Amino acid sequence: MWIYGAGLGGLCLAVVFVPTIWFLTNQGISHVDTYPQTHNATSAWCSGKSNVDRVCRFKNLCFSSVYDTFLFLHGEESILDGVPDQRFNPALVDLSSVADHNTQYFHYVDAAVENLLELPHRHHIFKMGKFLLFNRFNPDNIMHVFHDDLLPIFFTLHHHGQFKDGPNLTLLPFEGWTHGEFFDLYRVLSKDEPILKLDLKEDTLTCFDEIYVGLSGLATWYQYGFNIPQGPIPDHSLTSFHVKYFREFFQRKLNLRTTCPPNAKHGVLLSREENRLIVNEGELALKISYAFNMTMLTVSLETHSISQLIQEISCAKVLVGVHGSLFILSLFLPPSSIILEIFPFAVNPDRYTPYKTLASIPGLDLHYVSWRNMEERNSITHPDAAPQYGGIRHLKEEEQRRIILSVEVPPHLCCKDPEWLFRIYQDTVVNVTEIIKVVTEAMTSSSQDSSVGKASWIDGSLKHRLAPGFINDLTCIYRNDLGGSNIFRIAWLQPWNVDLIHLPGISYEVLVQGQGLETVDTFITNETFLDIIPSASIHVYFVWVKAVSMGTKGPQSWVRCSW
Amino acid sequence: MWIYGAGLGGLCLAVVFVPTIWFLTNQGISHVDTYPQTHNATSAWCSGKSNVDRVCRFKNLCFSSVYDTFLFLHGEESILDGVPDQRFNPALVDLSSVADHNTQYFHYVDAAVENLLELPHRHHIFKMGKFLLFNRFNPDNIMHVFHDDLLPIFFTLHHHGQFKDGPNLTLLPFEGWTHGEFFDLYRVLSKDEPILKLDLKEDTLTCFDEIYVGLSGLATWYQYGFNIPQGPIPDHSLTSFHVKYFREFFQRKLNLRTTCPPNAKHGVLLSREENRLIVNEGELALKISYAFNMTMLTVSLETHSISQLIQEISCAKVLVGVHGSLFILSLFLPPSSIILEIFPFAVNPDRYTPYKTLASIPGLDLHYVSWRNMEERNSITHPDAAPQYGGIRHLKEEEQRRIILSVEVPPHLCCKDPEWLFRIYQDTVVNVTEIIKVVTEAMTSSSQDSSVGKASWIDGSLKHRLAPGFINDLTCIYRNDLGGSNIFRIAWLQPWNVDLIHLPGISYEVLVQGQGLETVDTFITNETFLDIIPSASIHVYFVWVKAVSMGTKGPQSWVRCSW
Repeated sequence: MWIYGAGLGGLCLAVVFVPTIWFLTNQGISHVDTYPQTHNATSAWCSGKSNVDRVCRFKNLCFSSVYDTFLFLHGEESILDGVPDQRFNPALVDLSSVADHNTQYFHYVDAAVENLLELPHRHHIFKMGKFLLFNRFNPDNIMHVFHDDLLPIFFTLHHHGQFKDGPNLTLLPFEGWTHGEFFDLYRVLSKDEPILKLDLKEDTLTCFDEIYVGLSGLATWYQYGFNIPQGPIPDHSLTSFHVKYFREFFQRKLNLRTTCPPNAKHGVLLSREENRLIVNEGELALKISYAFNMTMLTVSLETHSISQLIQEISCAKVLVGVHGSLFILSLFLPPSSIILEIFPFAVNPDRYTPYKTLASIPGLDLHYVSWRNMEERNSITHPDAAPQYGGIRHLKEEEQRRIILSVEVPPHLCCKDPEWLFRIYQDTVVNVTEIIKVVTEAMTSSSQDSSVGKASWIDGSLKHRLAPGFINDLTCIYRNDLGGSNIFRIAWLQPWNVDLIHLPGISYEVLVQGQGLETVDTFITNETFLDIIPSASIHVYFVWVKAVSMGTKGPQSWVRCSW
Repeated sequence: MWIYGAGLGGLCLAVVFVPTIWFLTNQGISHVDTYPQTHNATSAWCSGKSNVDRVCRFKNLCFSSVYDTFLFLHGEESILDGVPDQRFNPALVDLSSVADHNTQYFHYVDAAVENLLELPHRHHIFKMGKFLLFNRFNPDNIMHVFHDDLLPIFFTLHHHGQFKDGPNLTLLPFEGWTHGEFFDLYRVLSKDEPILKLDLKEDTLTCFDEIYVGLSGLATWYQYGFNIPQGPIPDHSLTSFHVKYFREFFQRKLNLRTTCPPNAKHGVLLSREENRLIVNEGELALKISYAFNMTMLTVSLETHSISQLIQEISCAKVLVGVHGSLFILSLFLPPSSIILEIFPFAVNPDRYTPYKTLASIPGLDLHYVSWRNMEERNSITHPDAAPQYGGIRHLKEEEQRRIILSVEVPPHLCCKDPEWLFRIYQDTVVNVTEIIKVVTEAMTSSSQDSSVGKASWIDGSLKHRLAPGFINDLTCIYRNDLGGSNIFRIAWLQPWNVDLIHLPGISYEVLVQGQGLETVDTFITNETFLDIIPSASIHVYFVWVKAVSMGTKGPQSWVRCSW
């Protein structure tokens, strides 16, 4: 509906048009005629120091499909809390859990409620409810789906207190892609049907009642090599509890069993149909089956749904395959199970460890082993393939020759290193005897370990977060009974929580300052007392004492000494 | 109830005792017998970079009245998100909106769910619901109550999305004081009756279902001189909208009228009964009343309740008094009103400006003037009073003499500067003629300004937060038509929001990098194009362009130039 030259609600513009306005609520769609009330001003509340760790919540944030950006509609009632002055440096918030990736930045553009009729939107839609705005990092790859999106979404919902038995936010995956084959997994974490950027209408301003922006990196454990070669995130915080908690929720929501049938004993072989093949896959499955007296299921995304894969893997004793994204389903393996990851010729398993890192989380009780093809003759290369599948014909001949002669891919950055692609997309005739030997060893050590593998809340990354509490009964007693020399004895008791939570290596940091002096002396002691000899001219000392465990400092107490 | 030597729930301890366990819900109190289920592990989610700007949310955080501290009960299901490794450096979160004050630190001590029976608590209480933990900074002083507590609580509730028509959290003022005379004001911002630290039982572990910790500093505008002499917080974010929004909520909740009777015209004189007196207060009230033909109400905390004071002030034309905490009620003054703040002899009004700063917020339309007694003979000092009321007899004679001879209190830190206290606690015989002249001038300029004083969303602190959007249609065209010299013309269009929201002083920052070069050249231009002459040996250039308004940079676009 277009009206030319109309004056509306006190606004006098040469040309205005009145957009149609729709309210979308859970009760359906209603048409709203009054214009100004429907556009409240935007407000923002952010916390954090940079785009990587900042989280924001918006009221009335609007997406313009005309300008392809979010608009912050300033108005008298706008609140801006925690938004930095330079918010494009480089961005306000990361839309992905992948830290500081320059395709994953959230921006908004400043506009004003009072300007709305000047903007070229033909429709205005208002969506009630609470939303979580983020980008799927690589929604076609199941490893990325779980690691970058699903686990982070799950813990972001908890971060905001928006998970009570299930998600309380509706997902807004806004990277611009279509649903993709794994969309059902996102639905599990969305209160209502997720809304894609593609779902928004043309020529429309779509305003959202309440949006949380960004994903927590809490549950991520691997970085993909954008700045340094790929590897585990140092000191990542993922614990076995996180994994189990996530897994149980997912299994319940997908209507999968959460306990395995008694005496179930089978293995799963992850098969690939197109590339990176195990040439003698049938032989491998058969011989593992014989060797360990267990059924081997050969599965792939082409033959099984994700739900079926999770179902089978959640009761598997062994998971075998060539390095690839399906190994992310190790998240669903039962305790005491074994992961065997096969690497093609010239690919060093120590450099590509997303699944090894996952399996090593204390308390998960997973037993990870790898096997690497060291025999070039058992490898089939594909120099003529497309570059993204390891072809190298587009390179200079000299470079092609170098790659072919190399026996190990050197460290490299993401994502298009031709030597890496050339090698990882090789097919392999695996040495079944060697592999069975590796699995046998893993099984032996697994059965020995299984009593040890219990999770403890003090495991893993938590250790360095535990701090001693306040020291107790800090006193300072003056003595001059030692042949006339003055002594202060500063004494205290160990914090009460040290023995309780078994904090190791307790020492004490003691700061001493004479009244009127600029300098502070620092003492470290393992005792619960310290003697200091006061200067003849200084009659008052201030003393601060804290306990330290493995570098983690407790709170400070203080006492005044005088003589 | 104590039991010795009992083994409970698989725990075998030499001596355990079973505490009584109470569940407090909105439905009343129920007694719970099963022990372990009632103690879920604690979890924490924090955002922010330091104690000043960090905000945290806890599940199942417990306060021990035995150890007088909060306990984090670690367990398998604990989540720790955003807690720094050194959380006593100096603290995890500030409990007050007053930044980084060392009496306002929030700490918890690490313990474990599995240790609970070893801890000496006789009772365990679990409180359902959501809470806001904070310290009242100075609950006896109405200025501090509003500035440090009530306004920050109000905007903290919004920050967390916990305000829908009213507060959705119950307040936990935990500084340890009793209710105090202004407690009703805190009740207005609390979902249920606030719980003081004093309300918690002895020998008890009190666990809270969900706690938010800390107060937003968004709405504070004044610092009290702990590190540098007191003054406005630079670039504070309080806007007239914030004030009006807060005010209207409070007036509604206190059942006060929000509109003034037509033709109402009265002034309010803030009186003090004990100290810092206006000796000729009656004369002042009478002569203002005559001069402006308005009723003058003389009010004080001794004669009026806070509700009555707010009611009267909310319709006052003039607010007069000696510098003191009641001026915080300027928050409730109507537009176009006048504030006259009287300062005793030797006290420079430019150094004590909490109310002047408040009144100067654009859009509030308050007219602030001050009057300072310059005649020492009109001042009555109290050298024999207690030191906290300005007595100086405890000082050395020389220092007393210096203070008495000084004609202006030099800049000083909070909070016990004797010269400041000596001067601010003087009584004053005010010069009524001068004061009426000052008020008359203010009234004249007020009536002239009243049309100008309208709030705009672009007022105040917002200005430097508004950024230009993306530049449009960035292109790079190669020309060599100028007598053989090569030129790239880089051209773009102004961001579409620049004219819309009237961004001033737009310029463009252009970064240019030749392919393979390490260096980046930066150009600043007011035009929407830039010509660059490529090096003969470099055939590809990368160019990034962003718009800049008053130092605030917009997002970056880029283009590749080649010839």
